[in-house]
Amino acid sequence: MSNPQTTRRDFMRATGASLAAASIGSAVASADQGAATAPPARTFGYAIVGIGSLAEADILPAFAHTQRARLMGLVSGDAAKARETAARYGMPERGLYTYDTFDRIADNPDIDAVYIVLPNNLHAEYTIRAHKAGKHVLVEKPMANTVADCEAMIAAAKAAGRQLAVGYRLRYEPFTEAMIRMAREQEFGALGAIVCEAGFNIGNPAQWRLQKAAAGGGSMMDIGIYAVNAARYLSGEDPLEVTATESTNRSDPRFKEVEDTVHFHLRFPSGLIASCLSSYTVNLNRFRVHAQRGSFEMEPAWNRTGLRLRVLRGSVVEQRYLPQRDHFAAMMDHLAERAAAGTAPLTDGVDGLNDMKVIEAIYASIQQRQPVRIG
Amino acid sequence: MSNPQTTRRDFMRATGASLAAASIGSAVASADQGAATAPPARTFGYAIVGIGSLAEADILPAFAHTQRARLMGLVSGDAAKARETAARYGMPERGLYTYDTFDRIADNPDIDAVYIVLPNNLHAEYTIRAHKAGKHVLVEKPMANTVADCEAMIAAAKAAGRQLAVGYRLRYEPFTEAMIRMAREQEFGALGAIVCEAGFNIGNPAQWRLQKAAAGGGSMMDIGIYAVNAARYLSGEDPLEVTATESTNRSDPRFKEVEDTVHFHLRFPSGLIASCLSSYTVNLNRFRVHAQRGSFEMEPAWNRTGLRLRVLRGSVVEQRYLPQRDHFAAMMDHLAERAAAGTAPLTDGVDGLNDMKVIEAIYASIQQRQPVRIG
Repeated sequence: MSNPQTTRRDFMRATGASLAAASIGSAVASADQGAATAPPARTFGYAIVGIGSLAEADILPAFAHTQRARLMGLVSGDAAKARETAARYGMPERGLYTYDTFDRIADNPDIDAVYIVLPNNLHAEYTIRAHKAGKHVLVEKPMANTVADCEAMIAAAKAAGRQLAVGYRLRYEPFTEAMIRMAREQEFGALGAIVCEAGFNIGNPAQWRLQKAAAGGGSMMDIGIYAVNAARYLSGEDPLEVTATESTNRSDPRFKEVEDTVHFHLRFPSGLIASCLSSYTVNLNRFRVHAQRGSFEMEPAWNRTGLRLRVLRGSVVEQRYLPQRDHFAAMMDHLAERAAAGTAPLTDGVDGLNDMKVIEAIYASIQQRQPVRIG
Repeated sequence: MSNPQTTRRDFMRATGASLAAASIGSAVASADQGAATAPPARTFGYAIVGIGSLAEADILPAFAHTQRARLMGLVSGDAAKARETAARYGMPERGLYTYDTFDRIADNPDIDAVYIVLPNNLHAEYTIRAHKAGKHVLVEKPMANTVADCEAMIAAAKAAGRQLAVGYRLRYEPFTEAMIRMAREQEFGALGAIVCEAGFNIGNPAQWRLQKAAAGGGSMMDIGIYAVNAARYLSGEDPLEVTATESTNRSDPRFKEVEDTVHFHLRFPSGLIASCLSSYTVNLNRFRVHAQRGSFEMEPAWNRTGLRLRVLRGSVVEQRYLPQRDHFAAMMDHLAERAAAGTAPLTDGVDGLNDMKVIEAIYASIQQRQPVRIG
């Protein structure tokens, strides 16, 4: 008889795979299984570093929908929570680490990669330590709090000969893929303008996201980065210049240390400009491309589920229906695949670095009250 | 027996009034007729100066929907076209003028106001001449090509003791009125950001709108001004500072002289910022207010008909249905009413002047590559 843990894991693996094929990850599944071969083995082990709300709500459940990735490690300062989580997900206790014992993952062959879900100011340190331990890394966005840290992380990946991916989950889901295709193939003609807006009304003033030292900044670092990344992947260009203005009510207890709303323009080499908005007080959830013969937009644009894509031509509004996919599962599988092939992931360290260059220029433009070139 | 012209005019008057009450101008009609009195007499005579496409497609037909305004004059360089138009609309030939005989309208008691629908660079001259002739003036937007011209026009109105209105037709229709009410009454909480986008793909490169001397500029003067005006009426504030960037393909034959796409931020005294877009290559037709508990938007926002208003709260999208109204008829009636009362119209010369201050600052910001204060 197999032990209960193994049984449970095997059960999840089987149902997870079939669920993914049937409803959530159909595009991935059909592509992978096109040649009527067996699905790839779920042999690429991840250790999740940090069991916060994102890990609990989205990342850990995503392992039910992966094709290649499996949960084989947890790193947490809370031993009881880690043990309880390991049991819930059928993960072997040998994969449990604290922040003090983290570097010992080097000796654990179950773990191929770590997925870093810590506060932003810890991203660089844990990425570099993971690479030194010989692991691939998937790190949540923002990649780090400074351009210098991003560069150090890229250097560490290179030195270790391991892959470094940044958690831009939207790049792994069908609506974003369709938007990029429509933009690049100029389905509605040349692009005239891009508008990307990302924001929400943030709660608890005591959370680390509102502390400058931990978060590196305010809405820009957490949600505005979606707009920066979208403007870059929709245009297919890196901006040359940034112009930004800030609107923050400093008497709001949430904004003692960090910025609330930022309006910014990104000027691309082609001459195209993206108008973007980032906010910690208003809901902003729209990426739109205006082309000569029509506009196309996602709204909601950055949610984990329920994304929508509309095309607007004059008074005609067309809704495009696409399968929904588990973003986190697809992203974790992608790194597994690329790591096996020895090639860089789609959202690699340079992608994360380039966003941070833009964000640093945005902060500089706000301070200097003038356009700032990115170089 | 009455002559055929009079009969036709009386017929149009009667049906126009009932049409307005029944379908198009119901909000106006019910307000005006609330006391069960007879509708106001259509005795306020307009002379239309310039019979171009806007006059032919929208302004002249609007007299079928007015309650107070009637067509009593036409000023055109094309005598045959003017006579033919007068006959079509049942207008007396004594109201026909050329640009040379224009000043003689002073002697025509049928004409209470002129509606100037000429190329932008002629707005100031004809406004001032009309005021000197003792007439009220409704002038198409942009009010003029420079702030200095706007100021001269306001001075001329004051000297003549006549009213000066600028043709911001959206201020006279129910969707815009609802948006303003929702913003001012903070139906969804404090405002966090405003986004106003106005643009279209302009045709014929030879038209006056693409000539700097005639139009004063490119998309900003013609369509971007809707975004400026909307940001001002939705916020209820005049901006302190403008930051603008331009994106124009100068190899496009339409943009030899004037700008195509402009991205600009308006910073208001309250700290609120509006992100705006103006374009002569892409369709942009959306004004949105982001408030703390929801967003509300018009899209289409600036069309003459078919306007739509949506409220977005999380994933809930609510469409608000309102009566459509003939914008031009309502605007012409409004000036008639205010002129009779001796009070300034809703969209007066100062409104037009304030938009031009913003537009001049936008051009200065593009040139200087820095934020420009308005004051």
